[in-house]
Parts: sequence; structure tokens; C-alpha cells
Amino acid sequence: MLFYDCSTAPSPRRARMFIAEKGLDPETRDISIAEGQQLQPEFLAINPRATLPVLVTEDGTTLTENLGIAAYLEARHPEPPLMGRTADEKGLVLMWTAIAEQQGGLPIAEALRNSSPRMKSRAIPGPQNYEQIPELAERGKARVATFFDILEERLRDSPFLAANHFTLADITAFVLVDFARVIRMNIPDGHSACRTWFDNIAARPSAAR
Amino acid sequence: MLFYDCSTAPSPRRARMFIAEKGLDPETRDISIAEGQQLQPEFLAINPRATLPVLVTEDGTTLTENLGIAAYLEARHPEPPLMGRTADEKGLVLMWTAIAEQQGGLPIAEALRNSSPRMKSRAIPGPQNYEQIPELAERGKARVATFFDILEERLRDSPFLAANHFTLADITAFVLVDFARVIRMNIPDGHSACRTWFDNIAARPSAAR
Repeated sequence: MLFYDCSTAPSPRRARMFIAEKGLDPETRDISIAEGQQLQPEFLAINPRATLPVLVTEDGTTLTENLGIAAYLEARHPEPPLMGRTADEKGLVLMWTAIAEQQGGLPIAEALRNSSPRMKSRAIPGPQNYEQIPELAERGKARVATFFDILEERLRDSPFLAANHFTLADITAFVLVDFARVIRMNIPDGHSACRTWFDNIAARPSAAR
Repeated sequence: MLFYDCSTAPSPRRARMFIAEKGLDPETRDISIAEGQQLQPEFLAINPRATLPVLVTEDGTTLTENLGIAAYLEARHPEPPLMGRTADEKGLVLMWTAIAEQQGGLPIAEALRNSSPRMKSRAIPGPQNYEQIPELAERGKARVATFFDILEERLRDSPFLAANHFTLADITAFVLVDFARVIRMNIPDGHSACRTWFDNIAARPSAAR
């Protein structure tokens, strides 16, 4: 396997955590988004959509997108199960992963990419440039507040997002909550279930990778 | 099982097609988004995020999000396989599903929801209102053009998006391409591989459900 990572970005961190939880240690190449390496011809030949992470499988298939990489690794390396043990759990894992991406990941990205001077013309990841839309930055922050509420409500009923054990859904939401610091947002005071959940995951060795 | 559907919206259509391809026929309730039934207390008690589709499983778990519903059904009713047979295929199915959602579904929704007078204050699905951002409608249309290019490039090499057989990724992209008519966009002339793929899927009985 060959893993294309970027140590500073949240999406590849999700794959990195998943790989670490599986106990795997693939050959890794770091692509510097800060230096724009993902937009260079060498990397575009690997992923023309210019996103990270990318995993080249043991059979040579190039997988982009966190969900694709996770599904492959879960099938090829089933232990420990990170995408559900029963049919209901498998449903809940992808459900909560999708909720975290849509309600958390998207608005955080919108808030950052439409406000940061360093991301001028980079409102959307990928090979094409799109101008910033300042209203989108404001809207993003409002939506992230709702995301914290969604997490808190769920985590008052369950120690982990999708099941009674740690899964891909927790990795996804944890990395996104942690990344919200870039838009100066954090778990609100009083969201104690969310805070406990976050601190527990932050203590896992995979979170430091 | 109990399936909450909406006959006019693209997201529940994706689940409806998946269910039909599995040969299942669950009890179904149609929720009228046109009448705002998804925002009524009765439905919010089922899905507080006010989105469709929803599937209540045989064990009574409430699943929202297309990916969650598909993962459950694939595990509970494995035949025919719609999410990949090998580890590499499982990766490719979720990879292409994610690409279709991000590069197709999101921009189509942005173009529609930020321009249609009927969707004033409904720029984002869910219980909260967000005002339209006209720039986002323009940007959405530009991105949908790129989506058609991504599909064409892939389908020149492969009869289906993720594998050499029909999968969830094809359902996802097919429904989204078909729905692009609401923003008056269609497969461009000359995208012949995409057109052939689309017409083949449109002929499947599940596409008429």
C-alpha cells in the first residue's frame, strides 16, 4: 500500500487515524498543501481532483475520498471493526459519518475557505479556482454551532456516535471538531457529553499520529 | 421495515432505487416536502434533521442518510451486491458515491436552493432557515459542468462508475444527473459515454419506481 498524506489538513488526518486504529503502517508520502503540491502535475496524475488523502491498495487500485479508503481497509483488514459489527451498526456508522461531514465538515470548510486571506480564490478544494463568498463564511459559523448541538444531543445518549464502541463516525467527527479551531470555534461550555467524548478520543494513540 | 419516502425529491429516490434493486418492498410512507411535512412535529420526532429518506430497520433502528440506509440493506440483504464484491470494489463504490455527492449533488442543490423563488429561506435542508446566496447559484452551475466532465472521463474507461457492474455509485450519480434538469442542465452533447451509461440505467425497472 502507498498512502498520500498531508500532515496539516483534516481530511487526510481522518484516513491516518483510521489506518493507525487498524494497526497498519503503510509507506507514506506527505504532500504539502501549503506549498500547493496537490496542484502540481505529479500529483494530479495520481488524483486529478487534487484532493488528499489517497491510498493505493495492495492490488494497485487508487482510492480517493475517506469513505472509499475506509471501506477498502475495513474489508481487507477487518479487525478491529471500525464500520459496524451488525447490519444496524453498519448503517449507523455511515449515517453518523455522513451527518458529521455534512453538518460539520462542510460548514467548517465554508467558514475557513471563504474568509482566510491565504485561501483567496480557493473557496473549494480541487484543480479549479473559485472566488470567496463572504456570506458563506458567516453562514458556516452559524451551522457549526448547530453541529455541536447535534453531537451533544446524541452523545448524551451514547458513549460513541454510532455504536457502543469507537468507529469511523467518531474519527470523522473528532477530527472535524478539532479542526474547528481554525475558525475559532470549540465545543461550547455546557456541552459536557461532547467534551467527555472528545477528550477520550484525544487520548487514543491514533489521535497523535 | 418502514421506509419514509418523498416521491418528488432526489435523495429519497436514491434509497428507493437501492431498495428496488434489492428486490425489497417495505411498507412506505410518503412525506410531502412540497407541503412542508418534513418540518412538522410528527416527522421531526422521527428525524430531527428533517431530511428524507429515513428507514426504520427490522430491529427498530432509525436510519437517516442514504449511505446509512444502503450500508444496512447491503449487510442485511447481500444479494445482489450493490456496494462491491472485493475490497477494492468496496472502496471504489464509496469513493465514486462520495465524488458524485460532492461534485454533483452539492452544486446542483446549491444552484437550485439559492435561485428558486419557492426555496426562499430554504438554502439548506433541515429545520433551520438560511437565506439564499445568489452567487452560490451561479457557482453551482459552473461546478455541475465539471461534474459532467468527471463522469464522462471515467465512463470512457468503465461501463459503470465503480466496477464492471451496476452499484450504489451508479444509482447516486444517475439520480443526480437526472435531477440536474431542475437547474436546466443536462449531459452535454459529445459526452457520449455518459449518455450511454445514463440511458442504460434509465431503462432499469428501479429507475421508474
